Formats: sequence, structure tokens, C-alpha cells
Amino acid sequence: MANGRGKFISIEGGEGVGKSTQIALLCDALNRQSVETIISREPGGTDAAEEIRQILLSGNDNKFFPRAEALLFAAARSEHVERLIEPALQNGKWVICDRFIDSSRAYQSGGSGLKDEEIMTLHQIGSGGLLPDATILLDMDLSQASHRVQKRQKLLGDDDRIGSREAQFHENVRAAFLSYTKAEPTRFHVIKANQDIDIVAKEIFDIVSKLMS
Amino acid sequence: MANGRGKFISIEGGEGVGKSTQIALLCDALNRQSVETIISREPGGTDAAEEIRQILLSGNDNKFFPRAEALLFAAARSEHVERLIEPALQNGKWVICDRFIDSSRAYQSGGSGLKDEEIMTLHQIGSGGLLPDATILLDMDLSQASHRVQKRQKLLGDDDRIGSREAQFHENVRAAFLSYTKAEPTRFHVIKANQDIDIVAKEIFDIVSKLMS
Repeated sequence: MANGRGKFISIEGGEGVGKSTQIALLCDALNRQSVETIISREPGGTDAAEEIRQILLSGNDNKFFPRAEALLFAAARSEHVERLIEPALQNGKWVICDRFIDSSRAYQSGGSGLKDEEIMTLHQIGSGGLLPDATILLDMDLSQASHRVQKRQKLLGDDDRIGSREAQFHENVRAAFLSYTKAEPTRFHVIKANQDIDIVAKEIFDIVSKLMS
Repeated sequence: MANGRGKFISIEGGEGVGKSTQIALLCDALNRQSVETIISREPGGTDAAEEIRQILLSGNDNKFFPRAEALLFAAARSEHVERLIEPALQNGKWVICDRFIDSSRAYQSGGSGLKDEEIMTLHQIGSGGLLPDATILLDMDLSQASHRVQKRQKLLGDDDRIGSREAQFHENVRAAFLSYTKAEPTRFHVIKANQDIDIVAKEIFDIVSKLMS
């Protein structure tokens, strides 16, 4: 599968919808088809971008104003695309990314009040406006997702500055994600994330395998 | 002098032209006129922006690609403007800033190859396009500036990822600064920085005091 450009798939959704689990399962399924894959995440993915991730996710909720936050996410993504994603795709590898531009749109625009055009302008300047070949939105009722997040926080002490914002913020984020799927029905695929893990995994693979031809 | 909005003055120029010295002298001179001033610097000026400064100026020269670098400078500036500069100006204080948007233009566009419009678009989204009331460009032949930088590095071990780039980069930066002064002759004031310190200080104060009426 080193022929031609690889495919770029982003997995999106709020906190606690099962993104990491499904990414691991998707990667396994692709590897069984001899598709060489790279798993990455945003913000982060390269050393310098992980440094940006560190200052973005540590500290108090009001550490950065929304505009600075949007610029920092765009900076991390710019490094990630130029140094890791683009070279991998050009080498025929597939990249599966835990969050990408649509998270910036949903969190810094839908959730925090920048205009969507502003987020997309930053993405254009930083990353040439690169969009995934397919974006899987794992959608779930917030009360269920919040239950999963609390469980994970208890188990792992896994919490950050943005994930811990109040319920209304996360409602806005979910509504924003769903609005993007309506505006770009070809790129987006919405999957009900409250189903059994195996069913979700199968639905994702059915979508992704269509890109293999 | 707490009446009305304060004035915003940026001091620009390459490495080793004497910006810090002249900023201290200008601040003293303004204080003697009972003008309340705040000295700040870019990148930095607030806690969060200083964190960004730290990752920007540490590491190897190729740590960030120019686009990510431009986004990081814009993020630091966004915090700086929204949290420190704007509130100070609104309180009638004067802000004297060691580098501002024109350094981003000269270093990330003139020196590194982004388009000037792209830098200005980032500044518009991040900081509402705020421009200083007056910008003083301390201009000096590069061989003299480089002599001063070497002296400072020997004395203080004071060096960073961007300041240590090769001569051609700094030539491009100087040419870029000079081109901005031609495009905006009202905002910019070029001062020959190879003169005696007191003469430079007097020339700066003569310009700045015109803003006091």
C-alpha cells in the first residue's frame, strides 16, 4: 500500500465518547488489510507541538483568552501537518488523528465565540487549509459522556484545563460538531457512540474501507 | 496624566541596536513629565505569554517552521494586548514596548518568507490589528550591531534561537524594517542608533513628547 498518497482520517467528538479506543481498533483493522498507518493526536504529534500542548492544557481555565488559545492550537497544528502528517501521506501512509481542525472550530468557535471563518483563516495560513479525507464524528448524549469522563478521571486522574469546563460549554461544542456534519455531509460521518464498542468499530471500518480502493 | 487613553509606543530594530537602554531612558524622561508608563516586551509581557516566549526562544534554530513560529508570536501578542496593553492604555497609562507587530513582520515575513498580509491577518484575528501611536526604529549598520551583540553574549551569556541566525537573515530583517518606514512614514520614526546614547535618547524624546499634548 505504498502506492500514491495515503488517506487522512480524523476522529472527532467531545470528551469521553471513546475516541482513543476506536482509533486503536481502526488502526488494527487497517493493519490487517496491510495498510500502513500512523496514529497521532491534536494538539501535539511532534516534539515542538507537544510543548505547545503542554502549555495549552495546563493551568487555570482562564489562563488564555479564546483568541490566544485559537492561535496556539493553529501553531501546534501547523507543526503537526508540516512535519508529520504531510510527509506521512506523501509516503503512502495513512494517518488516523485523534481530533483535528474541527475540534478547533467546535471548541474555539462553537464553544468560545470566535468566528468560524477566523478559525479557518488561521488553518489556511498555518496548514494550507488541509482537510481530512474522512472525518468520523462520535456523537453521544452529554450525560452519558460525562459519566465516562468522571470514571476515567477517577481511574487515571486524567483531567485538563479545557475538558473540565462546565456543561453548557460542552453542549455548545456538541451542537457545533453536528452543524459541521450538515454543512459537509460528504466528509463527515456521524456515528452513535453509545452503541457497543464492536458495533461502533464496525461502522467506522465500513466507512473507512471505502477509501481503500 | 490619567485623563483619556494612554499612548502606545513601540521600539523596534535588530539585535544589539540599544533598544533596552533607550527604553529605560525614555521611561525615566516620561516619568519626569509625570506620565505614568509601563515597560513591556515581546514576545512576553504576561505570565502566559512568557510561557510562549520560553518555547519560542529555546531549542534549535529549526525547532519551529516559520508558519508555526508566526502563529506563536501572534498568540503571545494576543495575550499581551488583551491582558496588559489595552487595559493599561484605557487607564491612561503609556505603554513602551520592546518590539511589537513590526518585529513579527520583519522576522517572520521579511526574514523567513511568510507574506506580510498573512502576518497582518494573524494580528487582526489575535489583537484586533492594534498599531502603536508611534514606532521608533533604531537603525544601525549590521557590523556595528553584531559587534555589540557579541559583547553582550560574552558578558551575559545572552543568546537565543532567533538572535543567533546568520548574517543574511539579519540583513533581510533590517531591509524589511526600513521598507515599513517608507510605507508608513507617519507612524514610523527612524533614528540612527550608532550615535551617542544621549543623542539617541534626545531624538526619541523629541518625537514622543509630541504625543503629550
